[in-house]
Amino acid sequence: MVKNQNRQVVLAERPRGIPEARHFELQEVPLPEPGDGEFLIHNRFLSVDPAMRGWVNAAANYSEPVAIGQVMRSFAAGEVVQSNHPDYAEGDLLCGMFGWRDYAVSNGKNVTFRHDMAEVPLSASLGILGVNGISAYFALLDVCEPKTGETVVVSTAAGSVGSAVGQIAKIKGCRTVGLTGSAGKVQQCLDEFAYDAAIDYHSDDLDAAIGEACPEGVDVYFDNTSGAISDAVYRHLRIGARCVVCGTAALASWDPWPEGPRIERHLLVKRARIQGFLLFDYSERWQEARVQLGEWLAAGKLNYREDILSGIEQAPGAIARLYAGENKGKLLIKLD
Amino acid sequence: MVKNQNRQVVLAERPRGIPEARHFELQEVPLPEPGDGEFLIHNRFLSVDPAMRGWVNAAANYSEPVAIGQVMRSFAAGEVVQSNHPDYAEGDLLCGMFGWRDYAVSNGKNVTFRHDMAEVPLSASLGILGVNGISAYFALLDVCEPKTGETVVVSTAAGSVGSAVGQIAKIKGCRTVGLTGSAGKVQQCLDEFAYDAAIDYHSDDLDAAIGEACPEGVDVYFDNTSGAISDAVYRHLRIGARCVVCGTAALASWDPWPEGPRIERHLLVKRARIQGFLLFDYSERWQEARVQLGEWLAAGKLNYREDILSGIEQAPGAIARLYAGENKGKLLIKLD
Repeated sequence: MVKNQNRQVVLAERPRGIPEARHFELQEVPLPEPGDGEFLIHNRFLSVDPAMRGWVNAAANYSEPVAIGQVMRSFAAGEVVQSNHPDYAEGDLLCGMFGWRDYAVSNGKNVTFRHDMAEVPLSASLGILGVNGISAYFALLDVCEPKTGETVVVSTAAGSVGSAVGQIAKIKGCRTVGLTGSAGKVQQCLDEFAYDAAIDYHSDDLDAAIGEACPEGVDVYFDNTSGAISDAVYRHLRIGARCVVCGTAALASWDPWPEGPRIERHLLVKRARIQGFLLFDYSERWQEARVQLGEWLAAGKLNYREDILSGIEQAPGAIARLYAGENKGKLLIKLD
Repeated sequence: MVKNQNRQVVLAERPRGIPEARHFELQEVPLPEPGDGEFLIHNRFLSVDPAMRGWVNAAANYSEPVAIGQVMRSFAAGEVVQSNHPDYAEGDLLCGMFGWRDYAVSNGKNVTFRHDMAEVPLSASLGILGVNGISAYFALLDVCEPKTGETVVVSTAAGSVGSAVGQIAKIKGCRTVGLTGSAGKVQQCLDEFAYDAAIDYHSDDLDAAIGEACPEGVDVYFDNTSGAISDAVYRHLRIGARCVVCGTAALASWDPWPEGPRIERHLLVKRARIQGFLLFDYSERWQEARVQLGEWLAAGKLNYREDILSGIEQAPGAIARLYAGENKGKLLIKLD
């Protein structure tokens, strides 16, 4: 049933660092009407992703910052409820950049893909079959080129990207070591995500713990954190190591750039590389990843976890919740 | 004429940071006798390279440190004067890791290549047709993959590696920008090494100078310095930039690792990469580079400069001289 009113979360104030509830405002506005060549989508799930912090920061980033007063940019998954667009019909299930709101009008340009796998729930299209799984897939396989028998270390190893990375690396015959933020998540890494070893990065001696878990050194480092966690991993790089920076969750702010140990000499000595990754560069190949991830899911080779909050009023505080590491899986907000 | 005595420079004391004259000792020892399967080489030129600093430092590096009391490890070029080895005959001109001494006995294993290009002087086999030219060739072409029309920035742009990098990039159709340490070297970059622009890195506002010379940003950064010079270049990376660390001349010491601005977030935003390079990883392909460099030399497309000191007693202070930037080309020591 289409409602009369539309609730939306707009950016009220520009945060420095991590966006908190107070930086957003929940508004009720009239339901929009799709025009010619447009359709109305009813969002069922809103996505909460670490990257959203970058989208609201004023500092130069890979996309224009969300403007003050604008609906918060976000991935969402929903159902077409009204359509004047030839390619989309009522009942179609879609993922796209629909924003934090109940209903969105779209001309199709912000659709990322159709939820075309009937055997998996719609929410998976925002996580393991969406941005998280696809990021894990390309950043690991394309950028890091892991080989059988190599040691792959993953930071935020139990997170929605990290848990996929660990399992894909395992499928590829690598030894996998996860770094995560609590004893419970260490256990989750071992029990649910098939890591060969997992380390709580609050460990007294993280350096020694990594050395013990990676006696021959680190061939691939999949970095979702940067900061002190990465510094410890870098010290264990093996000759020819490949590192990808997929996220920088451990940096409180990058304006100005924070200081840390210089890595250049170490990269030279180890003939290692560090490369940045952005999912959007692979948009033409997303379907390739989704098909392979879907096959692994169907074969029971991939586990994933979701942490689903209920109601759009949960959205404003959700990014801070993610950065506090309170979520126990891909963080989503379910709407009625 | 073979002399009776052999002069050699040994490591007397382990330096922290840059090795100076006082860290070495010049000795006179009896002339060695080549045994079965060995030959005696008379060094004509000793090489002085920035990498030698790493070879005498105790900190973990890519090769075992030179031991106290051991002859200083170095490339050298010389002539075989006595041979009991089937593959080498009197009069052969060779380059190899013969060390800082007049005469060396070799079983052939430390020979890097024959000086097989009669049209160029022997000394070139230690520079443009030796480690410097070969480093420039592979680190630029293999690691950075420059494309026509791209902007290539080079640090220590007038140096023996940097000047080759700039010219090779130019041959490949790139726009080249050199960073160097004096007004004289800026002029040399423009006049002798075909740079499109050159900047004195002591400039008041290096950041602005790079921005002006690279209005569309930096596609390739060939780094021989690390430190503040690199920090300034990194700020101008273009999306998809490739950086290679070939040397770290601007770091006074890397034990412990010095601090600097964290690059990870920037690499992510720019989808850029930084990779370390070591010449020895390419040893099986050195000849490929020498042949191509030789062709460019013959065609007048490559210039090079040498700064030749006379006498082995110049060797102990030569590395510090190099790091002070006093040399005006590839630094060599000529022996009688």
